[in-house]
Amino acid sequence: MAEALGSDQLERILLSSPYHQWLALRLRQCSAEGIEIGMGWREEMVSNVQIQSTHGGILAGLIDLTGLFTILAAGGRVTATADLRVDYHRSARPGALVARGRPLKLGSRLCTAEVYLHRQDDDALVASGRGAYLNAGA
Amino acid sequence: MAEALGSDQLERILLSSPYHQWLALRLRQCSAEGIEIGMGWREEMVSNVQIQSTHGGILAGLIDLTGLFTILAAGGRVTATADLRVDYHRSARPGALVARGRPLKLGSRLCTAEVYLHRQDDDALVASGRGAYLNAGA
Amino acid sequence: MAEALGSDQLERILLSSPYHQWLALRLRQCSAEGIEIGMGWREEMVSNVQIQSTHGGILAGLIDLTGLFTILAAGGRVTATADLRVDYHRSARPGALVARGRPLKLGSRLCTAEVYLHRQDDDALVASGRGAYLNAGA
Amino acid sequence: MAEALGSDQLERILLSSPYHQWLALRLRQCSAEGIEIGMGWREEMVSNVQIQSTHGGILAGLIDLTGLFTILAAGGRVTATADLRVDYHRSARPGALVARGRPLKLGSRLCTAEVYLHRQDDDALVASGRGAYLNAGA
Repeated sequence: MAEALGSDQLERILLSSPYHQWLALRLRQCSAEGIEIGMGWREEMVSNVQIQSTHGGILAGLIDLTGLFTILAAGGRVTATADLRVDYHRSARPGALVARGRPLKLGSRLCTAEVYLHRQDDDALVASGRGAYLNAGA
Repeated sequence: MAEALGSDQLERILLSSPYHQWLALRLRQCSAEGIEIGMGWREEMVSNVQIQSTHGGILAGLIDLTGLFTILAAGGRVTATADLRVDYHRSARPGALVARGRPLKLGSRLCTAEVYLHRQDDDALVASGRGAYLNAGA
Repeated sequence: MAEALGSDQLERILLSSPYHQWLALRLRQCSAEGIEIGMGWREEMVSNVQIQSTHGGILAGLIDLTGLFTILAAGGRVTATADLRVDYHRSARPGALVARGRPLKLGSRLCTAEVYLHRQDDDALVASGRGAYLNAGA
Repeated sequence: MAEALGSDQLERILLSSPYHQWLALRLRQCSAEGIEIGMGWREEMVSNVQIQSTHGGILAGLIDLTGLFTILAAGGRVTATADLRVDYHRSARPGALVARGRPLKLGSRLCTAEVYLHRQDDDALVASGRGAYLNAGA
């Protein structure tokens, strides 16, 4: 396992993605045991205008990317998502979300992480899931 | 099972979502056996600027929403995604994508659909997956 | 939410299943916060005779049933598995396994639990996953 | 991609597993486009004695193994399941099941297949799912 990337490097890579910029991401915490990413809110994220719910695809993307950066912070050299699974627990209302990831397995070929999305205001669990990522070092 | 929604109604509901407008969606085909949705491309969708790949969260969202509209077109009265699973098969380059959904099971409480995402130019399979949706009519 | 089932009731229900008897299950711990189930080993569980690995289907079944009993122990009235996801982390060798489940969400229609399988001898994580279960009380 | 294994070789490998023997498997059809495996029934497979339903873990295992042999029949050199996802559509009653698999993607590192389980007597869809398998040839 290579040396894990530091917080500054990780944030630079995180924000080099145009989609991540659009999501208004921020790396809040970062260690080999887990990371925390904050996501802002914008009107174009809304799925159902009546209930102002954030679209499931936005949440799925936040789980996907948080899992990948969780693995990078833990020393994995992953480059692409192999597969992703998301459970939706309750509606995400307008407002910031916090994504917390922790590594499940750093394998030589595949790395797996689990991620939990909480509303920032009341910490309610909005969605959670897992990503499996292909290791470049194979 | 209630009567399935028609093509005009479905497209109106589809485009009432600000996120779906941002994705530049278009309902291309629609029947009880399956639907086809086209998605445009925009720079903010890019994950990795070097290879100009579309972000996995964009693809996950397209699978999620296509599955839900597949169930609506088949007569299900689903209102929310319960869970979502996505397999990423190859990078999505800049350019339009076509999502094809087909219903797997219309249950009284849960409905399931599978969805395949193809590049519009060469029809290559980019990603595929499944969504399970909660039935409002339970 | 109904009152949670007690340890004796849960074990009685657990062992009323012929498949669970074949798996030589034992309820080791049980509370609303999580449960622990032990599983014996038998030669018919082997997938690959060369490496004596336990079959992935055996592990998937152990994750499925542990998740369901986790929800029952937490007060959910679930009767059937809606869907299941399993990540395989390393080979399971002959020997007892311990399954630890914790509830993720007790919804009115769907309940979700996550489960981790460890080898009993060295506590290594063999597989982990999630189940979504249909609530009978809907 | 190596040459695909023939029907005789595949059946020999299939039945070398003690668990597969216990499941009373039979390779019914086999080509690069997909395979069909039949599974017998035995009382130890029962989950709920009242409704005589086959245990979800049995079905998950059948999906897992059918997906792996689907990839082998298509020329993939997979040796282990990376992850598995199963949707349960209706109860499986006592009686033979037929599993039909088709390859989704033969990647250099990961191969994916989808599998559908039908009751043999009335062809009803009992469960379906997907497996991702690690390629040994990486």
